[in-house]
Amino acid sequence: MTGAARMETTGQNTPLPSVAARHACRSGMVATTAGVANGFVQGNLAILPENLAASFHRFCQLNPKPCPIIGMSDVGDPRILALGIDLDIRTDLPRYRVWRDGEVAEEPTEIMAHWRDDLVAFVIGCSYSFEEALLADGLPIRHIERKLRVPMYRTNIACSPTGPFAGPMVVSMRPFKPADAIRAVQITSRFPSVHGAPVHLGHPHSIGIADFDKPDYGDPVPVGSGEIPVFWACGVTPQSVIAAARLPFAITHSPGMMLVTDLLNKQLAVL
Amino acid sequence: MTGAARMETTGQNTPLPSVAARHACRSGMVATTAGVANGFVQGNLAILPENLAASFHRFCQLNPKPCPIIGMSDVGDPRILALGIDLDIRTDLPRYRVWRDGEVAEEPTEIMAHWRDDLVAFVIGCSYSFEEALLADGLPIRHIERKLRVPMYRTNIACSPTGPFAGPMVVSMRPFKPADAIRAVQITSRFPSVHGAPVHLGHPHSIGIADFDKPDYGDPVPVGSGEIPVFWACGVTPQSVIAAARLPFAITHSPGMMLVTDLLNKQLAVL
Repeated sequence: MTGAARMETTGQNTPLPSVAARHACRSGMVATTAGVANGFVQGNLAILPENLAASFHRFCQLNPKPCPIIGMSDVGDPRILALGIDLDIRTDLPRYRVWRDGEVAEEPTEIMAHWRDDLVAFVIGCSYSFEEALLADGLPIRHIERKLRVPMYRTNIACSPTGPFAGPMVVSMRPFKPADAIRAVQITSRFPSVHGAPVHLGHPHSIGIADFDKPDYGDPVPVGSGEIPVFWACGVTPQSVIAAARLPFAITHSPGMMLVTDLLNKQLAVL
Repeated sequence: MTGAARMETTGQNTPLPSVAARHACRSGMVATTAGVANGFVQGNLAILPENLAASFHRFCQLNPKPCPIIGMSDVGDPRILALGIDLDIRTDLPRYRVWRDGEVAEEPTEIMAHWRDDLVAFVIGCSYSFEEALLADGLPIRHIERKLRVPMYRTNIACSPTGPFAGPMVVSMRPFKPADAIRAVQITSRFPSVHGAPVHLGHPHSIGIADFDKPDYGDPVPVGSGEIPVFWACGVTPQSVIAAARLPFAITHSPGMMLVTDLLNKQLAVL
């Protein structure tokens, strides 16, 4: 039975939680998608004009750990059927960022008026998916326990540049006891389409993090004695790179306001 | 074509390197098996009387990371066909240790005179197998580069006890740059029958290692700045536990003088 067929038989009365989340956005709901439609894949959004989209696509291809593409629209088409049958990328996120010349010009709750027939939408994997797998395995995630945003840092790890797109990899940090860090490597290795295995652990300074207590994005999170900080490539990287490229025009999601898709996190596991 | 058939067709003139290594031991060769018959699995040996073997087997079952069994004889049978068609456990290692009341009583080069029809031989996986996989992936292994023995430490990680068998897990240590440590977790996770993934990384003191510069076995190996020490469960654990149990009688291999089997290291990979 296909996903589409399953949706038809479960019917309009009981839509998938992911569909309900998108419909709520469409109806004007504006709130973080953290904790929404548990079990379903959420994604970062980047929308670019066709003349830059090929270059950005190549950037993602060259930098799969920070920029794993889980869905992509056709030129000018606001649908991404692979991520949701009725998905409309113009209305189905809680909030967007419209970028002009590298600055956030607006943060609207829908982008109908900004849509153009030369735009291409990229949906990029997000750490929520692998966090579900870590939690399911019994590993504690500090920032979730403390209701904080995950701390994120710009590093000295250069992304492979292409066209106007270049810059450092942004990483997210989660502290673990060493045995749990080893387990976290195993678990997240199964999820290459949502950043995969960590890129670093143990020595923040050696990846260019000068002040560990002051993350570049998100909230500081303490590392206990006997724990080690573990760093994953982060989906903030493409947004950081798009900003640095100072493109005339681009649209992204607003932080924490992700696209909720009909894919299940567990479907992303490669083993 | 089975392993046996392959041996027959390649013929007596060109025995497998593993068979040649065992025949050399049988003829009196006494030297470390490190670097011998590259590509073939080597194993730690433990031989116990039947009345203790069931208990030791259970100990291995409860502690698979330090004590992964890769082969086991029938009672009184010096052959282990699964590890080599012509293998004779009484003659095919370079040197043995005969233990009496928890002390090394003799270190003979064969144990024909010690063999009894109530003895059971256990062959336990060894880190040589996963080191081959690490090297094949381009990861540097410090103690091999410096022609040292791997440093090993008694930890405060208690093995699950059973019968007379109890004691701390012994671990081996290899330093890596953090990105290589992550890769090493992935690679060794594929080899559960030769200790598998590391048991710890980063904080030696938190697993009870008081003096990092003085390993309990092997040679000290430096950890560079920007590197982290990575610890694997070690096949010295069963020998340490057998000594601590002060059994009336047991036989093991002498350190570095392992059993060379006809299994290929790559055959042990689970993925």
